[in-house]
Amino acid sequence: MQERETEIVPSVSERLARFVIEARIDDVPERVLHEAKRSLLNFFGCAIAGSHDAAIEHAAAVLSCFAGVPTATIIGRPQRTDALSAAFLNAASANVFDFDDTHIPTVIHPTAPIAPPLLALAELRRLTGRDLLLAFVLGVEVACRLGNALSPGHYRRGWHITSTCGVFGAAAASGKILGLASRQMTWAFGCASAQSSGLVETLGTMAKSVGVGNAARNGLLSALLAQHGMTGPEQPIEGPRGFARVAGEEANLFAIVDGLGERWELLANTYKPYPCGVVLNPVIDGCLELRARHALSADRIARVVVCGHPLLAERTDRPDVHTGREAQVSAQHSVAVTLLYGTAGLHEFSDSAACNPAVAALRSRVVITRDSAVPVGSARVSVELNDGTSCATKVDQARGSLERPLTDDEIEAKVRLLAEYGLPGTDVEQLISAVWSIDQRQDVGEIVRLAAPAAQTGGNK
Amino acid sequence: MQERETEIVPSVSERLARFVIEARIDDVPERVLHEAKRSLLNFFGCAIAGSHDAAIEHAAAVLSCFAGVPTATIIGRPQRTDALSAAFLNAASANVFDFDDTHIPTVIHPTAPIAPPLLALAELRRLTGRDLLLAFVLGVEVACRLGNALSPGHYRRGWHITSTCGVFGAAAASGKILGLASRQMTWAFGCASAQSSGLVETLGTMAKSVGVGNAARNGLLSALLAQHGMTGPEQPIEGPRGFARVAGEEANLFAIVDGLGERWELLANTYKPYPCGVVLNPVIDGCLELRARHALSADRIARVVVCGHPLLAERTDRPDVHTGREAQVSAQHSVAVTLLYGTAGLHEFSDSAACNPAVAALRSRVVITRDSAVPVGSARVSVELNDGTSCATKVDQARGSLERPLTDDEIEAKVRLLAEYGLPGTDVEQLISAVWSIDQRQDVGEIVRLAAPAAQTGGNK
Repeated sequence: MQERETEIVPSVSERLARFVIEARIDDVPERVLHEAKRSLLNFFGCAIAGSHDAAIEHAAAVLSCFAGVPTATIIGRPQRTDALSAAFLNAASANVFDFDDTHIPTVIHPTAPIAPPLLALAELRRLTGRDLLLAFVLGVEVACRLGNALSPGHYRRGWHITSTCGVFGAAAASGKILGLASRQMTWAFGCASAQSSGLVETLGTMAKSVGVGNAARNGLLSALLAQHGMTGPEQPIEGPRGFARVAGEEANLFAIVDGLGERWELLANTYKPYPCGVVLNPVIDGCLELRARHALSADRIARVVVCGHPLLAERTDRPDVHTGREAQVSAQHSVAVTLLYGTAGLHEFSDSAACNPAVAALRSRVVITRDSAVPVGSARVSVELNDGTSCATKVDQARGSLERPLTDDEIEAKVRLLAEYGLPGTDVEQLISAVWSIDQRQDVGEIVRLAAPAAQTGGNK
Repeated sequence: MQERETEIVPSVSERLARFVIEARIDDVPERVLHEAKRSLLNFFGCAIAGSHDAAIEHAAAVLSCFAGVPTATIIGRPQRTDALSAAFLNAASANVFDFDDTHIPTVIHPTAPIAPPLLALAELRRLTGRDLLLAFVLGVEVACRLGNALSPGHYRRGWHITSTCGVFGAAAASGKILGLASRQMTWAFGCASAQSSGLVETLGTMAKSVGVGNAARNGLLSALLAQHGMTGPEQPIEGPRGFARVAGEEANLFAIVDGLGERWELLANTYKPYPCGVVLNPVIDGCLELRARHALSADRIARVVVCGHPLLAERTDRPDVHTGREAQVSAQHSVAVTLLYGTAGLHEFSDSAACNPAVAALRSRVVITRDSAVPVGSARVSVELNDGTSCATKVDQARGSLERPLTDDEIEAKVRLLAEYGLPGTDVEQLISAVWSIDQRQDVGEIVRLAAPAAQTGGNK
């Protein structure tokens, strides 16, 4: 449906609110619901793995001093806490390694801010899997459509779009569960607009997690406040001093409401196969392929040459790294660990892997070259062996890209590894099968409890 | 001390952090400390008066469902709550009527976001009045210096500067009390930068209070997180994607650190005599003067003519109002209630005053005229009586302006009225004398408890 922007602009918030409150699960294509399950499964794995990162330890310690009735599961951790604090911590855990999902057009990580408020609500009030799925799909729709409207200027200016747009998605999803009326949903957007924050400058530090955690917590809070009558502006998004105008650079308001209910943003969601910069995916794919095909071992390798679009070198030509965070954006490190260990998971991008002498030795034999003819997202990898022979491969589309998405099995495998990393020895199969069958579950609370140690304590601290 | 901006810019966050942690109360001029007491006293009055506004009722109801150990006083209310929730509610209460203080160069309301975290900390750990005064002065310094650097572009773009800069001030003040090291203080700024939010679009709605409440709560949270080791970027303010660059329009970073410890922003703080748009102050002053001098009564008045700078008419020529919020920006309403009742307080700007037929009748006989020769901040008021006579006055500088600040006695009188409005029948004299002598008090917690009903309950809900 084509409408002129002038007819759309004055009522963007209202139209978005009405769409959310009126949507029924039967309106959502099966393919979208299945993508929602994939997103949730990937989310649980990431949150379990991240749940003992130092940033989460610090946040949990501080929040526990002020937390209320412990109704909610903290994923991966033995304590329970109140719903708002759980939303914060679970969102922060899911995103702390940047191993969570990515909405390609906006680089929003949508599930981290949007699923946790719903899981917290599911333990406050009985919530069916179908209701959760619908609310989740709608929350992603709201966050990513705002992101589309503000991209690319918003992120480029320095706004951490996952947080700034995520809080609106969290509010929409929570408000759907709470059964808000249209007017209340607009108020919820208004309360979210007063809490939208997050800066790119914080990426690479623990403060990033504060922004992402707040997006989830404050989205839930916005919906609860609106339900209680907390009013907001009529045009929190499109108003002259509303979110899109103030935080956007030439926002395309039309993109927010165009084709609502016809196109679904979740279909542009992707899942990372490796916990590092996304441009490194084809490089790691190539290394895995060569290692398997030629039974490569590090001591036979004289030199590795990686060739990619100049962007690859620009972002990842980093021969010398000392921390896991640096390793995540180093092509040399990615090549070295992949060829050494035949896998590229969280352990391979840890501080200790970064400092491992064997990794450092192989890293020093990796060279990154530039070729504008290689498309972004592709890479060539050549390995020269000590015996004078060599082998090479070319990866056109990396695993985890929109063109070559992770299969359901691959997501499952990723989640098993992540669960083993965060909760060693845990049996994650129940959780995996519960998420695949979430649309048949009567009580989502049972599912989220599968993502925490069996014997959760009821109190804080 | 004049330094070139190029030398300053790379280390703004670090210099600000170091200033805050190194400052001692003996470095702060007596005049500044006295202004801090005036700000705090005005704050308590505003917070008591606002504490039962609908926005606060809604927020308190929602937060109580998730609140933790009730260590902290909610000003004006019978319940206690956890420190973070108390910081939120007390900040929101103080600012809900926009009757709190105004830092003239930035229009920041500084005390609302900055005092509440300190009061909450004072009930978590014993805190002397001197320590609180120093931390408060420093918090205001940080918030207002950021505001100076970003003004006027930041507010003009649509950022609610009280909230966006207030969270940094709250973090600085809280961090001072917690004894953060310089590096931790920079982290606290980093955590604050991830939480800086608030939109002008929300003004006039309850959602405004969400932004202001969060500034206080999240500033406190930032300091607590930093104390626990939550890292942040090294340049959260001046970095390429830091607060000043992202939320600022051509930010003047030099203004943040120039003359630190030599000039004090608190000396540019002012207190409103009337709970309405600040441009109406000289109009109300004139009406009060004429009413007293000529014993005017409404039935004798044929017409009132107000003449001011065109800005006055632009913002306040509003003959027809139906709510208290509209009344606050109506010159006609302000004139009518002042001449009718001889006072212009919260009751006179309530919904019921807006709908009062006697007020409406007099409003209809008020005319606003424009004269570019009248300076902004001044006004002429002429009253024509039914007997054909008339009287007039000219107010050059309004009460409550920087040039004609409220006296200590006038602030006391304002606080008595506000306390009577928020907690009718309460004895506020103890609170007033406690604030004036706060620098001699060993336990600030005792003072904040004087601002709540005597029999506070220990629990939530």
